[in-house]
Amino acid sequence: MEKVLIFGHKNPDTDTITSAIVYAHLKNEIGVTAEPVRLGEINGETKYALDYFNVEAPRLIETAANEVEKVILVDHNERQQSVSDIEDVKVVEVIDHHRIANFETSDPLYFRAEPVGCTATILKKIYKEQGVEIPTNIAGLMLSAIISDSLLFKSPTCTEEDIQAARELAEIAGINTDEYGLAMLKAGADLSGKTVDQLISIDSKVFEMGDHKVEIAQVNAIDPNDILSLKSDIEAVLDVAIVEKELSLFVLVVTDILNSDSTIIVRGSHAGIVEKAYDLKLEDNAALLRGVVSRKKQIVPILTETFKG
Amino acid sequence: MEKVLIFGHKNPDTDTITSAIVYAHLKNEIGVTAEPVRLGEINGETKYALDYFNVEAPRLIETAANEVEKVILVDHNERQQSVSDIEDVKVVEVIDHHRIANFETSDPLYFRAEPVGCTATILKKIYKEQGVEIPTNIAGLMLSAIISDSLLFKSPTCTEEDIQAARELAEIAGINTDEYGLAMLKAGADLSGKTVDQLISIDSKVFEMGDHKVEIAQVNAIDPNDILSLKSDIEAVLDVAIVEKELSLFVLVVTDILNSDSTIIVRGSHAGIVEKAYDLKLEDNAALLRGVVSRKKQIVPILTETFKG
Repeated sequence: MEKVLIFGHKNPDTDTITSAIVYAHLKNEIGVTAEPVRLGEINGETKYALDYFNVEAPRLIETAANEVEKVILVDHNERQQSVSDIEDVKVVEVIDHHRIANFETSDPLYFRAEPVGCTATILKKIYKEQGVEIPTNIAGLMLSAIISDSLLFKSPTCTEEDIQAARELAEIAGINTDEYGLAMLKAGADLSGKTVDQLISIDSKVFEMGDHKVEIAQVNAIDPNDILSLKSDIEAVLDVAIVEKELSLFVLVVTDILNSDSTIIVRGSHAGIVEKAYDLKLEDNAALLRGVVSRKKQIVPILTETFKG
Repeated sequence: MEKVLIFGHKNPDTDTITSAIVYAHLKNEIGVTAEPVRLGEINGETKYALDYFNVEAPRLIETAANEVEKVILVDHNERQQSVSDIEDVKVVEVIDHHRIANFETSDPLYFRAEPVGCTATILKKIYKEQGVEIPTNIAGLMLSAIISDSLLFKSPTCTEEDIQAARELAEIAGINTDEYGLAMLKAGADLSGKTVDQLISIDSKVFEMGDHKVEIAQVNAIDPNDILSLKSDIEAVLDVAIVEKELSLFVLVVTDILNSDSTIIVRGSHAGIVEKAYDLKLEDNAALLRGVVSRKKQIVPILTETFKG
């Protein structure tokens, strides 16, 4: 049978990488030849999870159409977050938990998006629906994705379904969730040895909001000052990206994972949109957003609406 | 609890009307206050099904935002096929079996599209997943939708899942599918007393293909000549619509439901796209497409691709 490639978004995080691996496992179990691949470097947190459960990282690809005709997207649907030649392949399935935007097909497809905290939570349901058993290491990867996306269940994106799924997966994987989860998050928040360029591209996504292109990068930290002390270097890097990618706005979100707050650094011609959205004054291009930890739920929707006017 | 409105597309067909009724029933059973509504007149086929199973037609609405904040879309997702003020309400769910296009949200939502022949087939699964029992008349409506969308299982859109669902629903409803189905399709194909305007709007949808707006109307007939004999009147009506709605192309698909062929009447500045797509010469603005009965599977994708160039 013709092979299908499965991948998540650019600048992959733990949910994107593990969801590709997990869904490819499920597909192969039900007789569909599928290979998980990735669109970028593995971050420290994901590496910790893969090493812990002894699973190999997926192969890196630059383009898809040179290898296959059909692809499955996990953990994203927006074209600009996907493989560079997404227009040249046929998207046959999408499993996602984000807003839907800038996505279009000619034919009907299997598209499953649910407003839960993590793609893995949906995948776990699909295992059940398809009657496929979840192996220990696959359970461990799904648990890692839920811990990552929910910041150990502290993010407002986290739903009862995510918590319940994590509970069952921890059981299968034989894992103490709190202990393992904190170690994994800390591995991800270890930013030593990273250049400013690398810091910003760990988890960065471009969104189209009206006629504007907006990039929002997020970095998790145990001590946000490790990052904020580099502020002027960061601003210079954001300014270069704004010119290169023709962005109207670049927001770097530095999330304090212990206190569940974020400091934002904002650049671009439309920085005023952020002030309007949160009713605040940026000081020296920055502001503290108390209780904000979720780009998806607490940043993207409000900026999208504010751009609409 | 705040009420949510559930509706299908404009120019409603049997799947769109019954899916709104059926999904509202399911939602109410699980404690969500939902009302099915419709965006246009009930056609003869749908009326037959509603009368047969003794279910009232949903209420007609022109706009939604004056009544509710949240809506659920069934059997469509493209904005131009939806309620006129779709931008002013929040789409919290979509259950559909069409291509995805011109659809965008600010927030994550429950979006479930599957490449099956009928929305009812997906809804039947959701009843099972949610553990809700399907009442006799609701089963009858879902069965009617599958018969309608699949032209009694003869359309290429019809999948094994649709056939299996129909079998189980016929059992619950206590219906002889072939007998009931043919009577229902015939009720829909009874076009007597209809003006040309009415004929064309029975089941018409507008699609965006690249930068072009394309309208494709479909009429099922037992004897296509009943319709084709009105060709010059039809062309005049299509030409008016093309000007009014700024269409690049209008295709009327007259489907012979007994022989599973369609005759198309084509108007608009981009009629050449149809010739290119099917490698044919239109004669007097018309052509016979052998074996073509599905707008979704055999017309929209090929025109979309041909418009792309």
